[in-house]
Amino acid sequence: MVEETVTPEEREDEDFALDAVQVDAVLDAVDNRDATGLHELLDSLHSADIADLLEQIGSREREDLLSLWSREMDGDILSELDESLREEVIQHLEPEVLAGAVRDMESDDVVDLIEDLDSTQQEVILDALEDSDRAAVEQSMSFPEDSAGRLMQREIVTAPSHWSVGETIDYVRSREDLPEQFYHVILVDPRHRPVAYVTLGKLLSSRRDVALTDITEDTFRTIPATQPEADVAYAFNQYHLISAPVVDADDRLVGVITIDDAMVVLEEEAEEDILRLAGVGDESLSDHPTAIALRRFPWLFVNLVTAIAASLVIAQFEDALAKLVALAVLMPIVASMGGNAGTQSLTVAVRSLATHDLTGANAWRVVRREMLAGVMNGLAFALIMGVVGYVWFGSVMLGAVIGVAMIINLFVAALAGILIPLGLDRIGIDPALASGAFVTTVTDVIGFLAFLGLATMVLF
Amino acid sequence: MVEETVTPEEREDEDFALDAVQVDAVLDAVDNRDATGLHELLDSLHSADIADLLEQIGSREREDLLSLWSREMDGDILSELDESLREEVIQHLEPEVLAGAVRDMESDDVVDLIEDLDSTQQEVILDALEDSDRAAVEQSMSFPEDSAGRLMQREIVTAPSHWSVGETIDYVRSREDLPEQFYHVILVDPRHRPVAYVTLGKLLSSRRDVALTDITEDTFRTIPATQPEADVAYAFNQYHLISAPVVDADDRLVGVITIDDAMVVLEEEAEEDILRLAGVGDESLSDHPTAIALRRFPWLFVNLVTAIAASLVIAQFEDALAKLVALAVLMPIVASMGGNAGTQSLTVAVRSLATHDLTGANAWRVVRREMLAGVMNGLAFALIMGVVGYVWFGSVMLGAVIGVAMIINLFVAALAGILIPLGLDRIGIDPALASGAFVTTVTDVIGFLAFLGLATMVLF
Repeated sequence: MVEETVTPEEREDEDFALDAVQVDAVLDAVDNRDATGLHELLDSLHSADIADLLEQIGSREREDLLSLWSREMDGDILSELDESLREEVIQHLEPEVLAGAVRDMESDDVVDLIEDLDSTQQEVILDALEDSDRAAVEQSMSFPEDSAGRLMQREIVTAPSHWSVGETIDYVRSREDLPEQFYHVILVDPRHRPVAYVTLGKLLSSRRDVALTDITEDTFRTIPATQPEADVAYAFNQYHLISAPVVDADDRLVGVITIDDAMVVLEEEAEEDILRLAGVGDESLSDHPTAIALRRFPWLFVNLVTAIAASLVIAQFEDALAKLVALAVLMPIVASMGGNAGTQSLTVAVRSLATHDLTGANAWRVVRREMLAGVMNGLAFALIMGVVGYVWFGSVMLGAVIGVAMIINLFVAALAGILIPLGLDRIGIDPALASGAFVTTVTDVIGFLAFLGLATMVLF
Repeated sequence: MVEETVTPEEREDEDFALDAVQVDAVLDAVDNRDATGLHELLDSLHSADIADLLEQIGSREREDLLSLWSREMDGDILSELDESLREEVIQHLEPEVLAGAVRDMESDDVVDLIEDLDSTQQEVILDALEDSDRAAVEQSMSFPEDSAGRLMQREIVTAPSHWSVGETIDYVRSREDLPEQFYHVILVDPRHRPVAYVTLGKLLSSRRDVALTDITEDTFRTIPATQPEADVAYAFNQYHLISAPVVDADDRLVGVITIDDAMVVLEEEAEEDILRLAGVGDESLSDHPTAIALRRFPWLFVNLVTAIAASLVIAQFEDALAKLVALAVLMPIVASMGGNAGTQSLTVAVRSLATHDLTGANAWRVVRREMLAGVMNGLAFALIMGVVGYVWFGSVMLGAVIGVAMIINLFVAALAGILIPLGLDRIGIDPALASGAFVTTVTDVIGFLAFLGLATMVLF
């Protein structure tokens, strides 16, 4: 259906993602209340793309679409849907559609689905599960939010560590409820503690009489269920893990985390850092404008306090400004350059802390490097602005003042940009969240103070 | 060795990552030229952690360490090492150590290792490879940089699509050179075009007489070798792929990409966006200060031009500033608030574009939402600053002027913050790279213009 209206060139451009032509075709079908056409269009889409489509259309269009199509909603689409839309979409589903959808999901997806729902909706979904699944989900929910216990799936394939390849293959063949995705058989001791794992590739390629213990992988490591998910994602990325067993406080196997879950967390963590650095909270494109405004308000308010602090510094130099209006013209340049240089340093610091590249072992070396780089660019821009200041206002002294102020501020910016995130990290505050405000305050205050202070001393 | 000096509490804190105590112990061993101790310490570390350690220590310490230990260097460590250090480290290796290291590597890791080396070092490494491996690496290198062809490994497990489970298992058992990691058997037609794949789990759990075509996965999709790696990472993340066959222009199978490679790319892409948004290029913590300063200079220079443009606007209002110095005190507040609000909008826009959440289908809705949120926060901060301006300087009109200027600038900031990244993306420029400078120029210029312009009209 869609293919007819799309030329190959158009499709090639957005190869993997949902494209605007497909979205338009779906919206046309919804507008015409063409249920058959809508079904055909959506059937050809991956559940992740259907979720994206639901996120990208307006709320009235979404309601109309669901009224024509809601019986087809499955667990995969619900899993993919942005948290901000799940409650809304779930409210549109008939109870039996919802029950059918969640019954097909793996336990980790159910946990992810319900953990942000209100308790009434949680109950509805838990009630729809079979008893054993419900118990698995409730055990996962007993672990802290954003911990390995919430991330793991409960469907596991284990074997006693004394088994041979043949025994293991026979057991796997006989099992009815194999997980959809699994990459390792986990070897457990009699107390159900994981001791090693074997890849399916090794299992397939070894002779039946080989002992499992002879073909284990040395990448094996267990993850405590209470471990924060950010650390789990780091471990998967750092050590190229594909799956890892999760253990409780007694070292007993309670679940397994697979790399696709870790990949989602890794992306979310990077996303969070980017947004936090810009003073934007946990925001979604489908949020209401009021929600967006409210969520951005606190950061802007912090910035206002910062800006007023800088203005109070300027106010101390009213006499100088009244005497020489050129100072008012030039002063934002010094502050702005400091702010940008500080942001460069702090962004590198925040990311290096997040990726564990900046540690106690090299902190001092990195600080020294930032300071040196700050002085170098300080000198470069002092020269440039000194000349600009002189040419513009015809005063060598004014050029010299802005040049020296530039050196001071770029040096301070580099220092603040590295020391503030390091300090916040040390005392347990997320540097991505708070560094920006502090660094800007420092560079604004020092920028105005250095420039106007020097000018007062030298020019009058 | 290390364990003796580390208390359990200390270890728990940095569970997965390299900790400072381990680094110190290694540096002590290097200082004492204690080769045995050094070997024991490094033997207990994962190659990724050894690479991190080499990155975190100083260049002289690195040289000393390598002189004591270089014969142990293996391909895994070289793969993990930051690009900026590879040339340096490779120069310290004996030719036969280097040859041994690269001979153990999978083809995708060799490609990743050599693509940024100079051609002499490339030759040395290519010469060390066996002929068939060399041909595989050279074919990968013939694809564009940052394409799927560079990312794929050449080690593949395929089966004719008419085979049964039993035939496939026998073939896998008989093969000597299985890849270290593989998750699917790829079904190919007689012309070696991939047509489907089967997971190892399904292969293990199915009866020997089952046809492969009856147990294929519907997640199957092929990736053109010329596809940019960013799109590949998006597809893995969006469609929860574990591995995907790579095809050439004739749709013939040339390699396979696995999720761990996609995960690395996904993290690199997010990293790049964060750093580019802050005006920092492709920077590494082990770079020399001069390199850092040079790499940050262009962005600071662009910012200087922006700041001077804003100052030229201020210069138009010298008379007003001379008459009422309060204007000089208050004007940076309006510009600073605009800059921050614009950065919030543009960061959300840049990330949403990168994750394909912002598309042609919802662009207009997102623009409208940004504008509304901008007006709301504009009104809120107009009220706050109006009161602050009045209380501080005792003039109702001055309060009104700064309030109205605030509304204008926060509205313009929201608009610029969304339209500029959208526009840059449309014309094929990376919005992460260029949006910041444009948005700041707009908010600075409009901020000063609105505030000083209104003041001139109303107050004198």
